[in-house]
Amino acid sequence: MYTSPVDDILFTLKHIAGLDGDASIDADIVEAVVWEAGRFCDATIAPAAARGDKEGSRLANGEVRSPTGWPEIYRAWAAAGWNGLAAPMEAGGQGLPHRLQIAAMEIWNGGSMAFALAPMLTAGAAEALAAHGSDALKARFLPKMVSGEWTGTMNLTEPHAGSDLGTLRTRAERRDDGTYRIFGQKIYITWGEHDFTDNIVHLVLARLADAPEGTRGISLFLVPKFIVNEDETLGARNDLFCHSIEEKLGIHASPTCTMIYGDGRFGAEAGAVGYLIGEENRGLACMFTMMNNARLAVGAQGVAMAEAATQGALAYARERRQGKAPGADLGATAASPIIDHPDIARTLLTMKALTQGSRAITYLCAEAVDRAHEAEGDEKRHWQDRAALLTPIAKSFPTDVGVEVASLGIQVHGGMGFVEETGAARLLRDARIAPIYEGTNGIQAIDLVTRKLPLGDGAHVHGLIAELSAIAKAVPAADGGTGAWGETAARLDKAIGELETTTQWLQSALAGGHLAQALAGATAYQRLFGLVLSGALLAKGAAVAVDDGRRPQRIALARFLSENLLGETAALADAILHGADSLEAARIALN
Amino acid sequence: MYTSPVDDILFTLKHIAGLDGDASIDADIVEAVVWEAGRFCDATIAPAAARGDKEGSRLANGEVRSPTGWPEIYRAWAAAGWNGLAAPMEAGGQGLPHRLQIAAMEIWNGGSMAFALAPMLTAGAAEALAAHGSDALKARFLPKMVSGEWTGTMNLTEPHAGSDLGTLRTRAERRDDGTYRIFGQKIYITWGEHDFTDNIVHLVLARLADAPEGTRGISLFLVPKFIVNEDETLGARNDLFCHSIEEKLGIHASPTCTMIYGDGRFGAEAGAVGYLIGEENRGLACMFTMMNNARLAVGAQGVAMAEAATQGALAYARERRQGKAPGADLGATAASPIIDHPDIARTLLTMKALTQGSRAITYLCAEAVDRAHEAEGDEKRHWQDRAALLTPIAKSFPTDVGVEVASLGIQVHGGMGFVEETGAARLLRDARIAPIYEGTNGIQAIDLVTRKLPLGDGAHVHGLIAELSAIAKAVPAADGGTGAWGETAARLDKAIGELETTTQWLQSALAGGHLAQALAGATAYQRLFGLVLSGALLAKGAAVAVDDGRRPQRIALARFLSENLLGETAALADAILHGADSLEAARIALN
Repeated sequence: MYTSPVDDILFTLKHIAGLDGDASIDADIVEAVVWEAGRFCDATIAPAAARGDKEGSRLANGEVRSPTGWPEIYRAWAAAGWNGLAAPMEAGGQGLPHRLQIAAMEIWNGGSMAFALAPMLTAGAAEALAAHGSDALKARFLPKMVSGEWTGTMNLTEPHAGSDLGTLRTRAERRDDGTYRIFGQKIYITWGEHDFTDNIVHLVLARLADAPEGTRGISLFLVPKFIVNEDETLGARNDLFCHSIEEKLGIHASPTCTMIYGDGRFGAEAGAVGYLIGEENRGLACMFTMMNNARLAVGAQGVAMAEAATQGALAYARERRQGKAPGADLGATAASPIIDHPDIARTLLTMKALTQGSRAITYLCAEAVDRAHEAEGDEKRHWQDRAALLTPIAKSFPTDVGVEVASLGIQVHGGMGFVEETGAARLLRDARIAPIYEGTNGIQAIDLVTRKLPLGDGAHVHGLIAELSAIAKAVPAADGGTGAWGETAARLDKAIGELETTTQWLQSALAGGHLAQALAGATAYQRLFGLVLSGALLAKGAAVAVDDGRRPQRIALARFLSENLLGETAALADAILHGADSLEAARIALN
Repeated sequence: MYTSPVDDILFTLKHIAGLDGDASIDADIVEAVVWEAGRFCDATIAPAAARGDKEGSRLANGEVRSPTGWPEIYRAWAAAGWNGLAAPMEAGGQGLPHRLQIAAMEIWNGGSMAFALAPMLTAGAAEALAAHGSDALKARFLPKMVSGEWTGTMNLTEPHAGSDLGTLRTRAERRDDGTYRIFGQKIYITWGEHDFTDNIVHLVLARLADAPEGTRGISLFLVPKFIVNEDETLGARNDLFCHSIEEKLGIHASPTCTMIYGDGRFGAEAGAVGYLIGEENRGLACMFTMMNNARLAVGAQGVAMAEAATQGALAYARERRQGKAPGADLGATAASPIIDHPDIARTLLTMKALTQGSRAITYLCAEAVDRAHEAEGDEKRHWQDRAALLTPIAKSFPTDVGVEVASLGIQVHGGMGFVEETGAARLLRDARIAPIYEGTNGIQAIDLVTRKLPLGDGAHVHGLIAELSAIAKAVPAADGGTGAWGETAARLDKAIGELETTTQWLQSALAGGHLAQALAGATAYQRLFGLVLSGALLAKGAAVAVDDGRRPQRIALARFLSENLLGETAALADAILHGADSLEAARIALN
């Protein structure tokens, strides 16, 4: 059974993501929030995960029934105040740093990814509304979205418009009273319909008839399931419904809905009543507000899946006995716990190192979001750029790791891993969506290379790499002559050099107009960046002397990552620098 | 929809696995068998796969009901003579080379892995019976196992005895009539009970009361579901039954049974009637006969899953349009097929190269099995060693690739990949078992390093490496000055050098008694070996000039593999040579 990794989360928040000594927040509050979130999750969410997966959410007569007990769990969770953790205080939130929101998100997801998706989407919708909605709209909807009394959704995708939102067809029509009517079909709407709450606030991208083509002609609308009266009571059912829910590989308890807007099923006149958020034709910009933080939250899902898989595999490997490990001193028929076999130990350490590296990246990105929020002027710009640069990596690397580690977790369990009863298989099934939604990891790589490397006239990324170099250079001093760090410093230094070289090469390729060459290596570059960040950030954490008795373990894990996993960076750099030609030449093999 | 890759299979059989010019078999027969297998699969098995997965096999009152239509498909398949392809002619088989059996296995698995498991297990059981059974036992059981009228199973695993068979507890008791009675519980018995046939022949490992401890005290028994009378009619139900079937991640149509032997449910006296195969206490040796070929067949499952995933992703990527690829000349709102985006092309080429590399390794191993079968004396020993060396690689590399490529296939599909309806998710669910059963891939790596590297006093492996070097050295001559091969030769040469270095290092470590050091890198070594074989064998195939118009494509794919995927070998070599110390030191991080 998953136990929220409160100690590791607190350590990362404090010593890698800068909350130690942060004047803006009391250390006691940080500890209390993480501990309480862990307690709630371990007692309430995690125990419901397997049942929720097995039962799934079901659609009947346009209504979605979530798994037994889940509405009560959600309401208890919202009543405890968890939904508004990072929301502004003026909207009824607690105004805590985004880092704590991400920490809590990791915890809820570790308990049940399917469950955590409901608040994750609500948080994104509330954020977009808070940033771009009119005061009247905010007054009517935001407090209940912050309290969790109502949930929110994001309606972007249509059957022919996934990564490429410019081609979406959902229509919006103006009405004289300033409202709009929405007509169309949206797919993959997470928690688009459910029985947790008595209203659901849909944020819907649609196009006005006179809008420009492409992404400059998209507007964002708030479309509630039930119209909200002036006196805040619920009014008529709006003209929208859940047409079907997907049968999916994982996150079975989370209904993935096809939503139909404006087909006339509800109300006298066809058309779902919608309220414009922001300006007409500026919807994509509003949506990006929520998408950036949603990407970071998806990264936290990857961390959570990897963490849960690692915990499960570790527990199993300590109990399960098979064969004799090298050097084991046992009786004739006795067997070693499989954790003693080198191959299993290597697998578990790989899982642990990748999990902690992913967590470090995710929280570091959340730190940048916080600092951008607090800072002014040039400093604000700096942290905005930092958050922008880190976001695609923080979305992609942990979600790829989530799949990889969940798969390794199954392997450690042997045959028991393939049987659903252990839960190892569920983690892989759930984890597999995270590299896809909120922009596939391939889209993240394109974003990283084409939009993020040019930030600050191409200088920002080199500033980050210099910071990583400084971490590597500080390692020998942290060694204290014990040799415990092994070759960590040299390995980091080499990998950082590969990051620097490939970064320059990609920037040159872009500057020279060689887009296809640059994009051929984009995914390899994104992985390389994630590995280097993981290595440097684990080393940074291990170098911190805190009196918790775990420093030798942190040093050993940082060293393991550097000496066993960081070798991959050379292969990635090679593919980036030299692979594009053979890729182009090999296209004929796809015919 | 999956289409059997008949051309690629024939090419690999002929030009990589030595069937071209093989005097022992007519080329027309090879073509006819592969083409007909493909036709049967595409028309009958593949179309039933999705339904079989959705319906699954169900247990009620001790009887397993397979998916609708599946018993009929199985009987049509057996009636067409497919079951006895490689079985000896004296037992009613067709005595064809094992390579063709593996080719057919790949095809059945590509259609439906769950379906193919039934004949796969039957083939293994029939083989063990043919090799070790008494004439009387063979006369009574073998013909119907070869014809497919009855299926066979392998009963090894018990709850506490998976990889470590020495600890199994199923009991066997001698009876005065020369038969035995079997008592115990076996788990993970594939197709242990079903409605395909009217009898099922279980091969069961059990222990006599006076047997030595450990693996030297295990005997193998044939235990039929129904007793077979002297006149070959079916007699009484034997005292065994299927207690439950597992709820699994994948292969839903294949019932994975817990079997109970001898609890007295059937018959007057408790105890399932069993017939000894081979000698008492020599059961493990008999079982290994079938396990080696079963391992190779599992490798073919990995190839099949990778092939099916690649086909699905390619088809989707050609149809699906999103965004504009670099250099695409389209109208304002038109979009490129996603195959034109470099990241998708790279993914698809990776899938294709790994699939074809896996196929080459699997068929090369099957060639060694055939040659060992045909040869005499030293040559026989040579090919036996070759098959023994290649088997762990041919089991592990393709099955890891199956998971990796199936996961990439989901990614190419985006959101559609996570929805069960496309079938991409099923491939990952099915593929995930193959690295686990028939000896986990970690066990294969231990076998490779500790038992296979010492073959021929440690010289055999270097002979194989020298053959790979010769392939690499022949590449420049095959270039013809076109430059189409790029850096293939140099890349191969470097990777083969890393294989040689790590092989020597591991052999020295073993010779020096440093078992833990050697085992720490065993999985990395196994992967390295698989990558190098893939690279060399694709190059070998591409160098062959055949007039089929696909040579430029083969060269381009071999080059892609060398220049984009073979870089990983340096990282693997580094982990093998330098990773063990940090692994040992990092064990404290697992506490």
